[in-house]
Amino acid sequence: MAQPGTPRVGTAGTAVRQASLREHNLALVLRHIAGATRPPSRADLATATGLTRATVSALVDDLIGGRLLAEVDPTPRTGAGRPALGLVLSPAGPAGLGLEINVDYLAARVLDLTGAVRHREVHRADLRPLPATEVLDRVAELAAAARAAARRQGLPLAGAALAVPGLVTPAGVVRLAPNLGWRDVDAAAALGAHPALAGVPVAVENEANLAALGELHTNATGPATFLYISGEVGIGAGIVLHGALFRGARGWSGELGHVPVHPRGRPCRCGARGCLEQYAGQEAILRAAGLTGPGPRAAGLTGPGPRAAEPSGPGPRAAGPSGAGPRAAGARPALGVPAEGVARLAELAEAGDPAALGALAEAAGALGVAVAGVLNLLDLETVVLGGVYAPLARWLCPPVEAEIRRRVLTAAWSPVAVRPSLLGADAAATGAAGSVVRAVLAEPARWLATAGGGAPGRGAAAG
Amino acid sequence: MAQPGTPRVGTAGTAVRQASLREHNLALVLRHIAGATRPPSRADLATATGLTRATVSALVDDLIGGRLLAEVDPTPRTGAGRPALGLVLSPAGPAGLGLEINVDYLAARVLDLTGAVRHREVHRADLRPLPATEVLDRVAELAAAARAAARRQGLPLAGAALAVPGLVTPAGVVRLAPNLGWRDVDAAAALGAHPALAGVPVAVENEANLAALGELHTNATGPATFLYISGEVGIGAGIVLHGALFRGARGWSGELGHVPVHPRGRPCRCGARGCLEQYAGQEAILRAAGLTGPGPRAAGLTGPGPRAAEPSGPGPRAAGPSGAGPRAAGARPALGVPAEGVARLAELAEAGDPAALGALAEAAGALGVAVAGVLNLLDLETVVLGGVYAPLARWLCPPVEAEIRRRVLTAAWSPVAVRPSLLGADAAATGAAGSVVRAVLAEPARWLATAGGGAPGRGAAAG
Repeated sequence: MAQPGTPRVGTAGTAVRQASLREHNLALVLRHIAGATRPPSRADLATATGLTRATVSALVDDLIGGRLLAEVDPTPRTGAGRPALGLVLSPAGPAGLGLEINVDYLAARVLDLTGAVRHREVHRADLRPLPATEVLDRVAELAAAARAAARRQGLPLAGAALAVPGLVTPAGVVRLAPNLGWRDVDAAAALGAHPALAGVPVAVENEANLAALGELHTNATGPATFLYISGEVGIGAGIVLHGALFRGARGWSGELGHVPVHPRGRPCRCGARGCLEQYAGQEAILRAAGLTGPGPRAAGLTGPGPRAAEPSGPGPRAAGPSGAGPRAAGARPALGVPAEGVARLAELAEAGDPAALGALAEAAGALGVAVAGVLNLLDLETVVLGGVYAPLARWLCPPVEAEIRRRVLTAAWSPVAVRPSLLGADAAATGAAGSVVRAVLAEPARWLATAGGGAPGRGAAAG
Repeated sequence: MAQPGTPRVGTAGTAVRQASLREHNLALVLRHIAGATRPPSRADLATATGLTRATVSALVDDLIGGRLLAEVDPTPRTGAGRPALGLVLSPAGPAGLGLEINVDYLAARVLDLTGAVRHREVHRADLRPLPATEVLDRVAELAAAARAAARRQGLPLAGAALAVPGLVTPAGVVRLAPNLGWRDVDAAAALGAHPALAGVPVAVENEANLAALGELHTNATGPATFLYISGEVGIGAGIVLHGALFRGARGWSGELGHVPVHPRGRPCRCGARGCLEQYAGQEAILRAAGLTGPGPRAAGLTGPGPRAAEPSGPGPRAAGPSGAGPRAAGARPALGVPAEGVARLAELAEAGDPAALGALAEAAGALGVAVAGVLNLLDLETVVLGGVYAPLARWLCPPVEAEIRRRVLTAAWSPVAVRPSLLGADAAATGAAGSVVRAVLAEPARWLATAGGGAPGRGAAAG
């Protein structure tokens, strides 16, 4: 029988090899520290994990050497004895680069191991007229700037994850991104081969899935089961069940935008009729409000050009120089900026404009019908509205909730909460960066091996 | 590090107590035997599990004593040496009683530990006019007959599970069964207090969930992820993900019948409009085909009265006397038998009757719209049509598949298979009985404790 200090085994019914015991215990220690409400000491960790103090100390030394942990001054204690140093996740440890390609913007974001934002940049442009190679080049430029910003802050990159609004294979090929007009674009290969990301492992994933994970991990006290809806030009959903993403048979779950709401209704870009996207997608809403197309209300909405990078430090203090670096993207013309229309729509709705309010009501009604179907099927208690829905939530939530009350069989027993995302517009980039960081925390041994044994002076391969 | 023969531990990162090691190893041995392609010997089990021969023998003796295992003649081997006795799940071991209350029938079924059907009975009647207490009394009568049949075959009952078409709490209260008109009916308490089930633990679960589990376990080589659709007067769904039921936040997932397909369409019994049930439920189909209501086609469909019990033995041989026993249900009038209408509908469709074919096409179109939404959301590759949809699958599958091809974004890469259930009409009763049996196999120590140490001559508490 396992005693404190003896090696642990992993899965029921099978013995694990000695090598994987260290991997397991490294992750165990790191998990305790990441989840602690105040920095634990080595002794605290020994008590919490059942490992011996000597084992804990050896593991902690490895984790400090690999820049995954840092020691901090002891927190005051009520008990007797000299207080020990506390352990925290290192703010100078491996960071995650999150990238996002959406229909009308690109985004990059760097999160450090503690989850703090260390760099962010959003570049607004209608990307539909551009070929996929050009879009991938542009996002690689954002990646280069983000990597430079991370390097200036002394952060090695553990990896990059790219969010795209479409169906992505496990190998990182975008099979279909209807609103971008992409088919079979090998985004992982293109970014992996780009000099900007040399030596950095690149993953590619659906944007709503990554945004949902971002929401899950940002809202630590929030529910572990919810439907995250990413409202953009397309509408995607991330289904989070008991703290994990439900990806479906091929990783292609969450195509909420193509759930039929009026089976014989408007034709959709996907070839079907009556898809939710045609009633509640960003363009459908703006069109219904008279904010796109030839009408006078759409005038002046050609956009302010790309936003500059926003340097940001770890926590309230800004940590050294950051910024976008020498990028050329600012010199390119913005190709049309529908997201600006969303801000205008909110202004008009705020002012009581009937067309704006009508457009939002129609969208919310369609969204409510689709969401009611989802909730009847999955029995979820929380719906999170992300993307452009977040700033419009004030007008969307009540009618969506009304449809839910009307159509969801179980709503009478337990009302469903519909609320805006905490992450804002570039949620998927945040979720993407977070996915890299969480992979390091889940498998620290892998990072220690990659980082060449973890000697702090030696830096990391992908730094 | 764990060596063969040392006790195993259960979950990662926590030590398990000595008592639970025996529980774990009993289940491990049983799982190996249940999954074996031919009866393993004790030596085979020692090799497969990594436990010592002495440990395996002690565990096997306990399992034989508790009637969970039986020894069989050795299978011929090619190697040298005297062949050892093989071990199989005992056909005389604890059995599961499955009960089903649906809108127009009641069913009971007994499965033994090997999964063989040992008793079945279906009683057709429109149960809507009856109060819930009366319906529960009737199903308890079926339970009494099933229990008597099991007793005559020497089978102790490990428990009973009741399937109902509605929302069920973990405590077994039926919160809502719209088509039965039930609200807050404590079915678990009612059956648990009934003399017919004295001493037998009773669980209550949604019928589509149990039918989906039945399908999963009946089709051992089939997919582990699928959508099971139970087409009855109501339409329920069981979502099976990676071999496990997805129950949702409160166990109330799968209300496919209330997914909106025409948001401003026909009013539904649930209070909403345009629910799938109003287009593809059994009554909607029969009505569209002219087989219910005042029309001449519906004449002669008042039904043949309740079916008699069908005794069945373990495998091809009938094992002793069985049957319904002294039941009074046959003396009661059938209250209207819509299921008979389904058989008539199939006959008419077979003969090319335009109204029948039109009704099936309309239902399939609506079903296809709802299913397309589900598949866009969940990315499943298999849809199983159960309940009355199974005998109608010939006419339903092609149009459902056409809607899927038209509306599911991912269908182009991997066609979705739509096929009839293997279980037939009383699938939920089978699934219910199977759930009892699988609980015994998953936690044999619990059964051994319940059965009073497992001495074969002493019988079981619930026998």
